[in-house]
This record gives sequence, C-alpha cells and structure tokens, in this order.
Amino acid sequence: MESIEKADQADYRDGAEPAATATWHILKYAGGQLQPQADEVAAEYPLTIRVDGDEFATIVCSPSDLEDMVLGFLASEGMIRVMEDIRSFKLDVGRGFAEVELTIKQSTSKEWYNKRLIGSCCGKSRQFYFHNDARTAKTIPLRTRISAQRCLELMRDLQQASAEFHNTGGVHNAALCTVDSSDPLPMLIRSDIGRHNALDKIYGQCIRHRIPLQGKVIAFSGRVSSEVLLKVAKIGVGILLSKSAPTGLALELAHDLGIAVIGFIRGDSFNVYTHAERLELES
Amino acid sequence: MESIEKADQADYRDGAEPAATATWHILKYAGGQLQPQADEVAAEYPLTIRVDGDEFATIVCSPSDLEDMVLGFLASEGMIRVMEDIRSFKLDVGRGFAEVELTIKQSTSKEWYNKRLIGSCCGKSRQFYFHNDARTAKTIPLRTRISAQRCLELMRDLQQASAEFHNTGGVHNAALCTVDSSDPLPMLIRSDIGRHNALDKIYGQCIRHRIPLQGKVIAFSGRVSSEVLLKVAKIGVGILLSKSAPTGLALELAHDLGIAVIGFIRGDSFNVYTHAERLELES
Repeated sequence: MESIEKADQADYRDGAEPAATATWHILKYAGGQLQPQADEVAAEYPLTIRVDGDEFATIVCSPSDLEDMVLGFLASEGMIRVMEDIRSFKLDVGRGFAEVELTIKQSTSKEWYNKRLIGSCCGKSRQFYFHNDARTAKTIPLRTRISAQRCLELMRDLQQASAEFHNTGGVHNAALCTVDSSDPLPMLIRSDIGRHNALDKIYGQCIRHRIPLQGKVIAFSGRVSSEVLLKVAKIGVGILLSKSAPTGLALELAHDLGIAVIGFIRGDSFNVYTHAERLELES
Repeated sequence: MESIEKADQADYRDGAEPAATATWHILKYAGGQLQPQADEVAAEYPLTIRVDGDEFATIVCSPSDLEDMVLGFLASEGMIRVMEDIRSFKLDVGRGFAEVELTIKQSTSKEWYNKRLIGSCCGKSRQFYFHNDARTAKTIPLRTRISAQRCLELMRDLQQASAEFHNTGGVHNAALCTVDSSDPLPMLIRSDIGRHNALDKIYGQCIRHRIPLQGKVIAFSGRVSSEVLLKVAKIGVGILLSKSAPTGLALELAHDLGIAVIGFIRGDSFNVYTHAERLELES
C-alpha cells in the first residue's frame, strides 16, 4: 500500500476532485422583494467502491478526502483494519470509481452483503449490527477524561472552523480533537453532506497515519444516531461531543461500549448522557 | 387490500407501536454545575420489509405511522403505485417485520436490488437513479403556484406543530400542505429520525387515501438532497419548501423535473432556487 501513503503525489489517482460547491443563480426574497443573487450550494458526488473486482457499495458524498472516506468506510464495514490489509488502491475520480484489492480475500462477505439495507440516515439494521458490527465495534478501553470547559471550547472551534458550512448550509462536520487544551495540534476537521461520510473521512485518516487515540475526542455537528455511535466505537474514541441530540438506541450502545456522549452543547451548557465519570469539573 | 384501509381497526397489525421517545437520566451542565435531570430522547426502531416472502429492506426509523412508511417506501422503490398493487399486508410490530404480498410479482427486481447501495443520508447512487428512479420519478405536470407569505407561514406552522421535535431534538419533519391559506384542512405532518422516512410516511398517506396533489406543497425541515428531491417528484408535488439548503444535484433534478425549490426559509426571507415562476408576489 505504498501508493496511497504518498497522497501528496497522488500517483494512484486519476483526475482531480470535483469542486465541493457549485454556484447557483437564485432569487432571494427579503423585505417583500425578490432579488437575483449568486448562491453556493454543496455538491453531491457518487463514488462506487469495487473490492477485488466486485462492486461493493456506492456512496453519495461530498467530493473531498475520497481516499480517506473509502478507507474509513471499508474499516467500518469490517473489510480492513490496518493499511496492510490493502494490496492496491486506485481512484478514478472522473468516472467515480475506487478500485480496492485486499491482501486477504474476504470470502465471507457475500452472503450478508447481498441484503439490501436502508440506513435511513440514522441507524443500521438489527442484522447489520449483529453480523458485522460485532466484528468491528468494540468496548473502548481508553479512560480519557475531558473538562467541561474543553467541551464548550471544542464545539465553538468546530463551528467557527466550518467555513464550508457557512458557505452552503447543508454539510455535516466531524473533528478529531485532543482533550488537552494546551495541545498545539489543530483539530482534524472533515465535512460531508452525509453524516457518516464525515466520520469515515476521520477514520480513514486515523488508519492511514496510525493516529494514537489516547487523549482524543470526536466533536460532531449532527445528531448522534446508533450508526454514528457505532462508527465512533469502531474508530476507537471514547468521548463523543455533539451539538445535537442522541437517540435512545445510540445511548444504549454508548453505555455498553464505554463511550461518553455529551450532547446539546450550546452556549455554556450541555447534557451528559452516558459515562459521566469521563467529565471533569474544574476544581 | 382491505385490511390496511381499515387502519383504525388495525386488524392486520400485531402489537402496538413502541413509544416514540424514551426517558434517559442525564446530567445537565449549566452555570458551571452538573444537575441530574430526566430527558426525552428519540427512539430508533428497525423494521424489516419482506415482499412476497423475500427480505427486501430493513429500515431504521421512528416507530410511528409504520404502514404508511412501508407503503411510501415501496412506492418510492417502484414496487407499487396504487393500493391495488398490494394483495396483503401484515405488520408484526413486536418482531419488527412487515410482510407484503404484491398483486403482480416483481420478477425484474432481484438483479439490481442485490447491489448494495449506501444512501449516506443524502442521495442515491447513480445506478439507482438510472435503474429505478427512471421508472418512478416523473416531471411534475401540475402548475401549482404559491404566495411568498404562504411560504413563510407554512414553515412557521411546521416548526410550531413539531411538538416531537421540541421534545427530543433529533427528528425531521415533513408536511403535506395546501397553497391556499384559507383552506381549513390542517397540514399533514409526519416525523422521523430519518429524513427519507418522514417523506415516505407522507407518500404512504397519499397513496392510501388517494389524496389529490393539485394545489399541494411539501414543507420539510431538513436539507434538500437529491434523494429528498426525487421522493417529492415521486409523490408528485411540484413545490418543495425547506428551512435548510439544497445540494447542487438536487437543484439540477428539480430544474429538470419541474419542482420549485424554495429553501432557507427563516424569519421573513427565503431563497428561490428553481422554477421561480411558481412563486407569486403579493400585488
């Protein structure tokens, strides 16, 4: 898997990424009047992933960080765990194909991948959870703790840094951050029209660069569904911050898998839903 | 399909719907302090649809209006068009199964349903669009027009009526409304943790009660993705109101299919993205 690690040279990649936004000529209604105006809208881009020659999935996404998204998606699906599981990777951006060859063929996958699953933006099927997530979602052993001030600060930073969001409105943001506010590293932010894709892009970066997850936390702009929660568990991070609400199923999973869910982070307040022992109040 | 039309008696249904929300004991952080508090969170419920004995899809959804959601989903997928296409319908709420028998077997479906498609909350694959949506998405022939005031009013009404949203935070709302503000009929509102499910619930109602779509408009709380747009096209409504932003692909489809997209409806302003001829300014 040399080619994908040389991402700067992008010699495994055919074609440049399409623009993340498009300009659309709209009429703006305000003060009882219509005015023509140019508006930026988010792009939607379909990418078909082929694994060992077989079509595996088509993901509709924002056209950025495509290789990380493919890596994170394959890891989420239990197809890979580390970069060494990939023998070759080729991205044909123009035609919308990612060709992946695995080091070890996954012969078991076919039976249950043939089932058609509708994620509905916010969860996966029971079967899917049982079959696949059992292989990849695991209880988080890390005991990372975070201060209340840091929760507020990270969510503010995420919102400020999301320039793309301000441009087009319809994008979800996920960020990998450190609990230590004196850490000089900036947060790793990824955006996508699909909430899961934003997390897969983070996951792919973690795999590609072997990022250690001790002391890390994920901040997320969207609702915490069971699928979002499971992805965080697979990435291996034990604290999830969100400005939105979680679902009941997500909270049950978070409780079981050892993930602290801190939601509704708005202004100077938030809700701690699970594993409150991970939160430090300033002394 | 007598059974499902007698929805009030629900004799085709085994078990009551699970609660739409669950109570979770949280810690609320405010003013630098943590206080225990009871919080309502949205439920996630997986429902597996079997068509003529074969597993067709598993949808993760909010557990309400399940029969409408199944009907709307099957119609969206091109499996049915009218109630007469269904020979029998049985809902086993406790086990999470909907058993559907079609009047005419759909033998063609298998080949391309076997492909695994990831909707990513916000769009469908190119293949899916070509294969299936070509059968069901159609150019809207209706020339319904709406006033600017009515756009603002309907979005306000949708937000006020969404009691569930206020309870749990994580729910999308879709409403079928009339353009005529003197119409005494209330808007038909459906909620779901999945944006597409909320629209499928509307679609199912339209099919079940043969609701005429002349003079109708759909108001939607979420982002207008290509999949949302295609669902509105399939339902057959020519005006889509949203408080959020559309994607570029959704706008191209809206332009082609004759749907006016009016987005970012907030306070007293909004954006007209497509088919501005459907908007009436007060004279």
